[in-house]
Amino acid sequence: MKVSRRAQVPPFAVMEVLAAANARRAAGESVLNLCAGEPSTGASEAVRQRAIELLTAGDLGYTEALGAPALRRAIAEHYGRWYDVEVSPEQVAVTTGSSGGFMLAFLAAFDVGDRVALARPGYPAYRNILTSLGCEVVELDCGPETRYQPTISQLQEAYYGGGLDGLVIASPANPTGTMIPADELAALASWCSDFDVRLVSDEIYHGITYEEPGVDAVRTATAASYLGSGAVVVNSFSKYWAMTGWRLGWLVLPDDLVSAVDALASNVALCPPALAQHAGTAAFSDAGYAAARANAEQYRESRRLVLDRLDDLGWERVAPADGAFYIYADVSRSGLDSVTWCERLLAETGVALTPGTDFDGVHGHDWVRLSFAAAPEVVSEAVDRIIAWQRTLDVR
Amino acid sequence: MKVSRRAQVPPFAVMEVLAAANARRAAGESVLNLCAGEPSTGASEAVRQRAIELLTAGDLGYTEALGAPALRRAIAEHYGRWYDVEVSPEQVAVTTGSSGGFMLAFLAAFDVGDRVALARPGYPAYRNILTSLGCEVVELDCGPETRYQPTISQLQEAYYGGGLDGLVIASPANPTGTMIPADELAALASWCSDFDVRLVSDEIYHGITYEEPGVDAVRTATAASYLGSGAVVVNSFSKYWAMTGWRLGWLVLPDDLVSAVDALASNVALCPPALAQHAGTAAFSDAGYAAARANAEQYRESRRLVLDRLDDLGWERVAPADGAFYIYADVSRSGLDSVTWCERLLAETGVALTPGTDFDGVHGHDWVRLSFAAAPEVVSEAVDRIIAWQRTLDVR
Repeated sequence: MKVSRRAQVPPFAVMEVLAAANARRAAGESVLNLCAGEPSTGASEAVRQRAIELLTAGDLGYTEALGAPALRRAIAEHYGRWYDVEVSPEQVAVTTGSSGGFMLAFLAAFDVGDRVALARPGYPAYRNILTSLGCEVVELDCGPETRYQPTISQLQEAYYGGGLDGLVIASPANPTGTMIPADELAALASWCSDFDVRLVSDEIYHGITYEEPGVDAVRTATAASYLGSGAVVVNSFSKYWAMTGWRLGWLVLPDDLVSAVDALASNVALCPPALAQHAGTAAFSDAGYAAARANAEQYRESRRLVLDRLDDLGWERVAPADGAFYIYADVSRSGLDSVTWCERLLAETGVALTPGTDFDGVHGHDWVRLSFAAAPEVVSEAVDRIIAWQRTLDVR
Repeated sequence: MKVSRRAQVPPFAVMEVLAAANARRAAGESVLNLCAGEPSTGASEAVRQRAIELLTAGDLGYTEALGAPALRRAIAEHYGRWYDVEVSPEQVAVTTGSSGGFMLAFLAAFDVGDRVALARPGYPAYRNILTSLGCEVVELDCGPETRYQPTISQLQEAYYGGGLDGLVIASPANPTGTMIPADELAALASWCSDFDVRLVSDEIYHGITYEEPGVDAVRTATAASYLGSGAVVVNSFSKYWAMTGWRLGWLVLPDDLVSAVDALASNVALCPPALAQHAGTAAFSDAGYAAARANAEQYRESRRLVLDRLDDLGWERVAPADGAFYIYADVSRSGLDSVTWCERLLAETGVALTPGTDFDGVHGHDWVRLSFAAAPEVVSEAVDRIIAWQRTLDVR
């Protein structure tokens, strides 16, 4: 029987790496997992404790489609606290992870046939969700000269070359970790507003930034400043709050999309997971923030461990790791395709990295992504093994 | 800025009823909620206890996109236990509620422009999800003569009248509660196979059936018997296992859709909620089944309370409540549109029902849906109030 054309999504190379890593672990061999974009710490004690209370005596039925009112309020207040931006609870839609948020935002903003631009390299789900919804993806080839982020001249070209309905940006980005400075975000938002292009800003790595020691996400620019121009913010509890499996995220919506997202959410999702929502309010408690900050400090340490060894690693190019927990590096000097490079690295050393082909269909064969979300001692040991393994390549 | 055409989803009348009911309750007045399709009991002790253990010491990170292996195995075994149908764990996809299951099944099976048939009256999300994905919905006008279920002659007409790519059925159905007998399901599956039409079977109310006292879902026909012909089963932990807010469901997939759903799930969802998945395996323990059976017995009692008063209620027509926890009744004799009927019933008695307009855009103004998932004493009191209130209408 027919399988849809839109289901012909390219497989994730990272899933194959994970499967190989799991097989290796099951065989009793050591694996250092630096391929998953997942904190190793898990939810804070504050969140877990709240969840246990709710399981003992709490209502875990459906919530409102846009989320439990207390959580929407807590998220809105977070924008005042972190960014000094006023957001009303009515503009917040709680979602089933950022995945659920992207689905709702894309459905609400874009029709079949609409053209949506995004940076290459980038998170592959943007492209794959949009394609599955019948949108046309316009990939912008972004290189080191623009920190792998889109420019207005690229947008102009896309706009005049076939029309443009949307732009998806990410700062800090996956896989590169690079950020969009505040003035550039302002310029992008302004251009999108002028050209009637819907801006969707992925901010799931906010709070995990490194530019200046001691300066946290308070200084990070958010597209929530541009709700008035129609921008949409996507965020998540998965990264900063280390709640990946809880499937909890949110959207901050411009007024014109609120009722559309509400109607869509009540049809495509009913509501986000209730326990995660009710317990998730504790993420915004002092203890919740403190636990998240401690995680971010650990990523800072792990990042330093890798950056201090860049000379020994000898990679051709490395994207500036402004934020998130990734190092995106060009390993083409090895003479190996990145898929082969990752397969062999795993097979010969037990270190799992992700080939760049997941993020960039054109140049990805030269690049790999290293996630330093694992514990610092794991990252350190992995770097040692990579350096030693690369020396064996040089010999051949 | 542009809002998508596909976001123009008709609002749910039930949400307006719920909002009015909540406002009434907030004002300190009594509300008997018979409008939500939600068990009042909540998850079993077995599931809650497992969840508490996991929160104390468990990995709540991402699972595989198709679900945790132990849960996929437990679900596959459930088909042997209940239906004597062999299902392999590889054919099971755990989903974020049945909502997530419908999204994945529809994306995997249907392209933009595909035509998908479904019964009217029916659960509005089928229509709204399909429309948002760019599919064309073919509504089949189903009446009492076919238990409000589609017939092969209707399918033939749709097929020759413009082509047909899919059929969504539900047994027991929402809002009618009617079921498709085993021989008719076999005939529908056979017709779909012959005409290359993808059959999607919503079985979320399985286990909640009343035909013969003491006979449970073992005798209920499942489309899992027709996986070989390409049928897809959608199910959920929300109804039988009373785990609405946990957002956990599953698909049983024919072989040709497994890899498509896997690829789509890893993009649009990443994975279903991890805690719900790991705790959800306890739903298939002896204690989990026992708690669910006890709930079903309570619905049986509540259903009897309503059916015994049908003469006093004096409704024009009532769909045969074979299963689920709904009574779908024609209240047109009142002379009121069902939306007005529900508004006034709530305002004047505190009893919340759902107008049929959510389920049937043509005849829904004559019908209302009563959910007897509430506790028997609530249902009994509500019926008393409805009967008394209807007498006041007659007087006017």
